[in-house]
Amino acid sequence: MRCEVVAVGTELLLGQIVDTNSSWIGEQLALAGIDSHFQVKVGDNADRMKFCIQQGLERSDAVVCCGGLGPTQDDITRDVIARIMGVEMVRNDKIAAHIRDIFEGRGRVMPENNLRQADVPVGASTITQMPGTAPGLVCPLTIDGVEKVIYAVPGVPHEMREMMLGTVLDDLRRRGGDASVIRSRVLRTWGYGESAIAETLADRVDALDESGHATIAFQASGIEGIKVRITTKATNDAAAEAIIAAEEALIRELLGDYIFGIDEESMETVVLAMLRERGLSFAAAENLTGGILSSRMTALDPNLEIFRGATIAPHGTNETARTISGEDRAVAAATNVREMIGTDIGIAALAPLEDEEHPPGTVFVAVVLPDRAEAKTVALPGVLSRMRSYAVITTLDLLRKRLSEYS
Amino acid sequence: MRCEVVAVGTELLLGQIVDTNSSWIGEQLALAGIDSHFQVKVGDNADRMKFCIQQGLERSDAVVCCGGLGPTQDDITRDVIARIMGVEMVRNDKIAAHIRDIFEGRGRVMPENNLRQADVPVGASTITQMPGTAPGLVCPLTIDGVEKVIYAVPGVPHEMREMMLGTVLDDLRRRGGDASVIRSRVLRTWGYGESAIAETLADRVDALDESGHATIAFQASGIEGIKVRITTKATNDAAAEAIIAAEEALIRELLGDYIFGIDEESMETVVLAMLRERGLSFAAAENLTGGILSSRMTALDPNLEIFRGATIAPHGTNETARTISGEDRAVAAATNVREMIGTDIGIAALAPLEDEEHPPGTVFVAVVLPDRAEAKTVALPGVLSRMRSYAVITTLDLLRKRLSEYS
Repeated sequence: MRCEVVAVGTELLLGQIVDTNSSWIGEQLALAGIDSHFQVKVGDNADRMKFCIQQGLERSDAVVCCGGLGPTQDDITRDVIARIMGVEMVRNDKIAAHIRDIFEGRGRVMPENNLRQADVPVGASTITQMPGTAPGLVCPLTIDGVEKVIYAVPGVPHEMREMMLGTVLDDLRRRGGDASVIRSRVLRTWGYGESAIAETLADRVDALDESGHATIAFQASGIEGIKVRITTKATNDAAAEAIIAAEEALIRELLGDYIFGIDEESMETVVLAMLRERGLSFAAAENLTGGILSSRMTALDPNLEIFRGATIAPHGTNETARTISGEDRAVAAATNVREMIGTDIGIAALAPLEDEEHPPGTVFVAVVLPDRAEAKTVALPGVLSRMRSYAVITTLDLLRKRLSEYS
Repeated sequence: MRCEVVAVGTELLLGQIVDTNSSWIGEQLALAGIDSHFQVKVGDNADRMKFCIQQGLERSDAVVCCGGLGPTQDDITRDVIARIMGVEMVRNDKIAAHIRDIFEGRGRVMPENNLRQADVPVGASTITQMPGTAPGLVCPLTIDGVEKVIYAVPGVPHEMREMMLGTVLDDLRRRGGDASVIRSRVLRTWGYGESAIAETLADRVDALDESGHATIAFQASGIEGIKVRITTKATNDAAAEAIIAAEEALIRELLGDYIFGIDEESMETVVLAMLRERGLSFAAAENLTGGILSSRMTALDPNLEIFRGATIAPHGTNETARTISGEDRAVAAATNVREMIGTDIGIAALAPLEDEEHPPGTVFVAVVLPDRAEAKTVALPGVLSRMRSYAVITTLDLLRKRLSEYS
């Protein structure tokens, strides 16, 4: 099964928007075992769009056409597909009513133009998922006696993703003669090397190679940690979910609390959710991390309900600091910021003092909870910009581990 | 003149890397007045690359082929172009020696494979700019009696950019029959609306329309402010520079200190440079901006030499705060952080207290210098995430204006 991607929009050619949609679709096609040999950007021009889509259909079995489904006059993807199919368009009353409802729900008057979005080429069906006002389309057609298909999805990334994951990928695989669904789950880990994870999971990987039930793949992703992806093919969603859940349970037994989350969860969202659940607030001494932790936390917790503040100041301003160890200094910094801002918890990450002898990348992290404190010394990448980002995640990971012991 | 872009690399199709190069090239082509109707991504496959490049040459006058110039076996752009040109490759001794020198300079042994990068199709010339070990190529050829050209540039963005700006764009325009060069400069502004700028510069725009010397274009760019781009066409670099400098001087007279920098400068780099020049340090009260300012500043000033720290804490914890105005509170916050961290300057951005009546988006910003303090009330976008980013730039802009009075 082969599928090309045609990204539509003059703004893509002019570089006003970077085409991240094709990249994401390319990744999903690869995960679903579908080849993609060509991906094209073309402007809002009917003849050139038609050319690209038709060429894609000649070379491949399917084309995903991304963008150009909006309500304005230069959104012509629907019309171009109808021309390629050699059919008229009909207004879909259900979709039209739905679009009216969306506008009414927002208390806005609908420009009549918007109903163009409810026009569907005869023979095409609409995609069930419809997060915006633009319906996606599945447009089957026959070229020289061979069945082909065009999918039209919106250029708005989250709308496109929902339709790809909800309909297009499975439909593509079904048309490729594979009635199964492919599902995957990513287990997010932190603090354990890729080779150590591979070694720990070696028996599982071997067992799966034999059974063919699922596959496990590792992906080192910098400050996103190492991702362990479980992928399975099954007859339906429920069967896939059961296989993945069983495999996840086995892997969790082996990796324990190196796993901090799944799929789109990040260390930040996981820690915030744990704190929220436990009714705890925290503050951070960002002497080393220089505001990176704060800016990420305030983006997620904009009213400072859980993350209540931070201090950033240069190292070694305090002479007494020199008499105590790095870990003790980290605990002192975490204690200070906890008291100063008045939170349940304080956290800190510090670099060694200038004249201390430590290998490059040495960082002291500390978590001070209401009833105890913990610090540790970690070895992070030596380049300051990366060290900072790693120190943020390492400190949050220590907090996560201690929180898991609080109920 | 029409030019297509072919981005080469299987990793682009698989979504492991987002193709930002085509977007940038598309933008540059548009600025140079060259049409680009199609941009294609293709994997490291000789037949498919050949197909895409040839199709581009049929539809357009030129193709920029980006990527696949590295030293490994799957870097085959050179070979594919030689096949299209119907010529052999010859090793360019000068380039080979240069590549050897680069490795020696780094104290590394050069794998023999790397000399593949010195292979050039007969009839092609190498691009003068060569920031890496991969030379770029200009490959003229005749198809059905019509002169066409393929440019090969590396996929490493900064190498590609240097070659595009240094050679490819001018060469393209010369081949299009236009021996002139196009140069542009962006004046970066903050604090003045797009329509106000357009009005202020209306006479200049009219004068230029008449003289045809240059053009002025405006681009609203969110927290990057409004960009005023001067573009000119001239017989050579020096002539273009003279026209741009003259026009810049006229615009500066009209826009005054709304202009904070040019081209790639940002508010952050400009303010840091001004502080460095004057030997001044600063600290920030990030109560509203939540670490955004700190994380940007520490990225540019990693050792906290000029930006020496910040505090982030929730609003209204201090009851006496309620008795003074927002601007006075901002001055107090800037004064506090200046004293606490011990810097020459303190800055602050605060939102109104919860029970104060202000329009959404109201923000108080303050700058406290050694000898005076200044605060102002500004109206920013009401959505918190955008308000924060705008508040960072607005506060730095106030600091910039006061610094310009210090010599």
